[in-house]
Amino acid sequence: MSNNRRLASSLNTLKQVNFDLFQRDFLLTWEKEYEDIWSILKVAEILKDIYETNRGLRIFQSGLGISWFRDNSTRTRMSFSSACALLGLSHQEMEEKKLQLYHGETVRETVNMISFLTQAIGIRDDMYMGKGNKFMRDVASALDEGFKEGVISQRPAIINLQCDLDHPTQTMADLLHIKNYFGNLEKLRGKKIVMSWAYSSSYGKPMSVPQGIITLMSRFGMDVVLCCPKDYKPHDDILDKAQKFSLISGGTFHITDNMKKAFKDADIVYPKSWAPYRIMTERTRLLDSGNQEGLVELEKECLEQNACYKDWVCNGNLMSRTKDGKALYMHCLPADIQDVNCKEGEVTKEVFEQYRIETYKEAGYKPFIIAAMILLCTQKDSIAVIEEKLKEF
Amino acid sequence: MSNNRRLASSLNTLKQVNFDLFQRDFLLTWEKEYEDIWSILKVAEILKDIYETNRGLRIFQSGLGISWFRDNSTRTRMSFSSACALLGLSHQEMEEKKLQLYHGETVRETVNMISFLTQAIGIRDDMYMGKGNKFMRDVASALDEGFKEGVISQRPAIINLQCDLDHPTQTMADLLHIKNYFGNLEKLRGKKIVMSWAYSSSYGKPMSVPQGIITLMSRFGMDVVLCCPKDYKPHDDILDKAQKFSLISGGTFHITDNMKKAFKDADIVYPKSWAPYRIMTERTRLLDSGNQEGLVELEKECLEQNACYKDWVCNGNLMSRTKDGKALYMHCLPADIQDVNCKEGEVTKEVFEQYRIETYKEAGYKPFIIAAMILLCTQKDSIAVIEEKLKEF
Amino acid sequence: MSNNRRLASSLNTLKQVNFDLFQRDFLLTWEKEYEDIWSILKVAEILKDIYETNRGLRIFQSGLGISWFRDNSTRTRMSFSSACALLGLSHQEMEEKKLQLYHGETVRETVNMISFLTQAIGIRDDMYMGKGNKFMRDVASALDEGFKEGVISQRPAIINLQCDLDHPTQTMADLLHIKNYFGNLEKLRGKKIVMSWAYSSSYGKPMSVPQGIITLMSRFGMDVVLCCPKDYKPHDDILDKAQKFSLISGGTFHITDNMKKAFKDADIVYPKSWAPYRIMTERTRLLDSGNQEGLVELEKECLEQNACYKDWVCNGNLMSRTKDGKALYMHCLPADIQDVNCKEGEVTKEVFEQYRIETYKEAGYKPFIIAAMILLCTQKDSIAVIEEKLKEF
Repeated sequence: MSNNRRLASSLNTLKQVNFDLFQRDFLLTWEKEYEDIWSILKVAEILKDIYETNRGLRIFQSGLGISWFRDNSTRTRMSFSSACALLGLSHQEMEEKKLQLYHGETVRETVNMISFLTQAIGIRDDMYMGKGNKFMRDVASALDEGFKEGVISQRPAIINLQCDLDHPTQTMADLLHIKNYFGNLEKLRGKKIVMSWAYSSSYGKPMSVPQGIITLMSRFGMDVVLCCPKDYKPHDDILDKAQKFSLISGGTFHITDNMKKAFKDADIVYPKSWAPYRIMTERTRLLDSGNQEGLVELEKECLEQNACYKDWVCNGNLMSRTKDGKALYMHCLPADIQDVNCKEGEVTKEVFEQYRIETYKEAGYKPFIIAAMILLCTQKDSIAVIEEKLKEF
Repeated sequence: MSNNRRLASSLNTLKQVNFDLFQRDFLLTWEKEYEDIWSILKVAEILKDIYETNRGLRIFQSGLGISWFRDNSTRTRMSFSSACALLGLSHQEMEEKKLQLYHGETVRETVNMISFLTQAIGIRDDMYMGKGNKFMRDVASALDEGFKEGVISQRPAIINLQCDLDHPTQTMADLLHIKNYFGNLEKLRGKKIVMSWAYSSSYGKPMSVPQGIITLMSRFGMDVVLCCPKDYKPHDDILDKAQKFSLISGGTFHITDNMKKAFKDADIVYPKSWAPYRIMTERTRLLDSGNQEGLVELEKECLEQNACYKDWVCNGNLMSRTKDGKALYMHCLPADIQDVNCKEGEVTKEVFEQYRIETYKEAGYKPFIIAAMILLCTQKDSIAVIEEKLKEF
Repeated sequence: MSNNRRLASSLNTLKQVNFDLFQRDFLLTWEKEYEDIWSILKVAEILKDIYETNRGLRIFQSGLGISWFRDNSTRTRMSFSSACALLGLSHQEMEEKKLQLYHGETVRETVNMISFLTQAIGIRDDMYMGKGNKFMRDVASALDEGFKEGVISQRPAIINLQCDLDHPTQTMADLLHIKNYFGNLEKLRGKKIVMSWAYSSSYGKPMSVPQGIITLMSRFGMDVVLCCPKDYKPHDDILDKAQKFSLISGGTFHITDNMKKAFKDADIVYPKSWAPYRIMTERTRLLDSGNQEGLVELEKECLEQNACYKDWVCNGNLMSRTKDGKALYMHCLPADIQDVNCKEGEVTKEVFEQYRIETYKEAGYKPFIIAAMILLCTQKDSIAVIEEKLKEF
């Protein structure tokens, strides 16, 4: 009952909001309006609420949700599969023997061939700087053509499951987590969030999370701090976006290379490793030209560079400097945890253990974020669709 | 409304037709009566119609649709998966580590073990001349025994997703495509269709499509021309069938090795590479005896033979000779397109581009053909089942 | 009608029974009460009955069933997938590139990450003596924590799809098979069942089936005989359990190393190969320490030891000694059949052929046993859930 009233009230609020997601893809949060972001968060919560009272929202009578992972994944694969199950789609995986679909002709054909009864395509393509998001747009334009020409009778929505630029399903799950942790979106205003680089002995972690976090959190009036060694700074385009969003939302955006200072009075810290833009770009070039020697050399160089910053570790000392010594620690998982899965890494065992359950909860929003994106991007009148389904219970 | 009326009218027509598909498999079109073929086309269209008005036809409350690919496939796998989703079946793939299931005992057991809740098994086994269709029949007889002995409580329908002899889901999608392209089945009468060999630098493409096309199209009163170098002719058995069907349907069937003459005044052309029967048979023998050296030798020999016919390319010149210079170009995809995915191949870039969207549409009928086969082969009174479902909307 | 009456009567009987499976896992039959075992058998039969009248029991609106095979499997994978389809769960497979999930931290995290919308997790982990069942308990405790801490909103049930100790879905399917073969559970009382070792030229077959059979059948008043060469005896703990259960149920339990004597007057024989406990334990130790040489040596040793018992074959001679010469032959499949898939093996071609269909039927209960376990372990009031669903028909 009270659950139903809560749902009704959420749906009514949603009706007041001018979102515009139907027949669009979800590729980058910074391309979306505030209302779009807000509505996805809201619908994700509605779906979680419905699921937790042991119900589904099988809005699709039939059809496929296809996941296309051009990089390994267990967790996001399961999240996507869960979202499909929730909405009534059959999940099917694209399997590429070799990553070779780059030239336009083949993409165009393949994409149409797999989309005759497809409602959503989730893509991860995060290995190649300058190419992952581009690939998604090639898929999108193939779908546009196929839909326009009557090849496919519905336009599947593309969901970015991580590219070279952004990781929207992750960062929006992160956002939902802190919204609920602190109470509501308003409460995030003025909160200090530190997106910090941290040491890892591994090589080539994508930049999508830090880029996604600074550009998304800056839209909610937060005091966003990006903290990293100079060489690890994202591209200026991204920094400009974070700056601009902060201005609009009434927050702030700062960059520093001093972890100790950054953590001072922070409400939220997100310490995580990533590779320098220069390295990622160079790696893409070497991969493209098949230069194996160059790649070995580059990896060595990158690891040596990383090793200059072995003290960039989120430990108890740093945490004690945060607001009341108890900032919320966040991570997209899996983390490099010292003395657990590595010798030296992003976070100490003690700090991670203290926030472990919170990081699990953080991840738990992802299936619902994905489902909300699919629902809002494929349904003309999504609110009516939800209301109709709720009547069945 | 008008959509519902169209559906009702289609169903009424269907009721007049004496098809006999229940508890049968779909292995070869030439084993089926005209009424069977006709009904599958009709039901495929009904299913497409229902799907396109955003509805499914979940006739199965539960159960599996199993795809068993003994050769790589992305497209047909997705088509089969789509058909399963449409009808409410969960799609599961058989995975063979090694292709080793040939001896009868193992087939018999495995087939029963995977069929306890299975409604349809789609099989692709197109690599071994003289063995692929045979394998499907071994599966069929294992299912027959299991069903008769009460091991399985329903007899799953086997759908041939391409074998050494035929490719019925492809050719029937092709047929539906030209039916709709030209208006209706009657309009195909007297149309000239040229199934032509074309050059490819690859080796060992199955003969199933040309064999399937000449034996199927000859049943609809068309003027069927098979055009290929002498060494590439299908087995006489197949040619005899095409001849016989033409006679019955009031069409014609001719064979030529002159592409230029063949294209003259053609309404439809289907230029595609395949391997000679002799090579395919020899390859099977060598694979069976594990003769690696022989296989290398054979591949070399085949490619040399192919290379004699590099000028067998569907180009603008040839196309200009067709009826009004605008015959419909068909292909089962992927095609070897010159300057796109090969240097020399089946078709020029210009010709392919002109018909690219049409080839996509051609492929788009396949999921519905598969679904229609599953429905008609597993349901005692399929029309009643569809009518019952339509009432729910 | 009569079918519905039968179902109603079964459900009424079930209501009298005090089973306790909700929010538990199914890991070992010997941890479960008699009422639990009995209820699973009953519900499995109810589900089979419902399925065979062409209906499903989609009790789940949405959600995943995850199978996690840490050893190859086609049959059990299909059984699990079928059970999921029957109940309305989407089946998703965990894929481990390498078997590396042993340390506690990683298990804990991964398990939560895959469980946000998961209702059941089927696990096979039968390779490592002393570790497989332990792994399932690590998964269980990770789920317990996640559920308690609000990370996941439902506690998925773990179904043991074979571990180092037991193979409950197999042995309970076996039990359902003999129940129906002989008429009812009461009729099993006093029946002599021989779980016998038999020769195989392969190495390292798990002990889970013989261990599972002697501990389960001894609970139903049967005269259970374990027959094997001395070196192949299970651990004393297991033998003690079988002894204790026999005492309680009014059956008997004997051990012998004489196959001829064992088969005398047997009602049921279950001849099957397995590896000695000592070898399995040693193998685990060597695998753990990565001792490749030791493993090669051990395999050699094991095969030599096996070879001492090449005459342990279930043949016509032995079968003629059984009750009226027609004991029921059982096997979990695939069997090593002489002159079929091996030169020397567990059973002769003639004996196997005579009982082949029965072994298929035996296997046919497995999907329904799995579905019954999922249903009873996840639903608070499973009987009401079934009754509610039956009303829909």
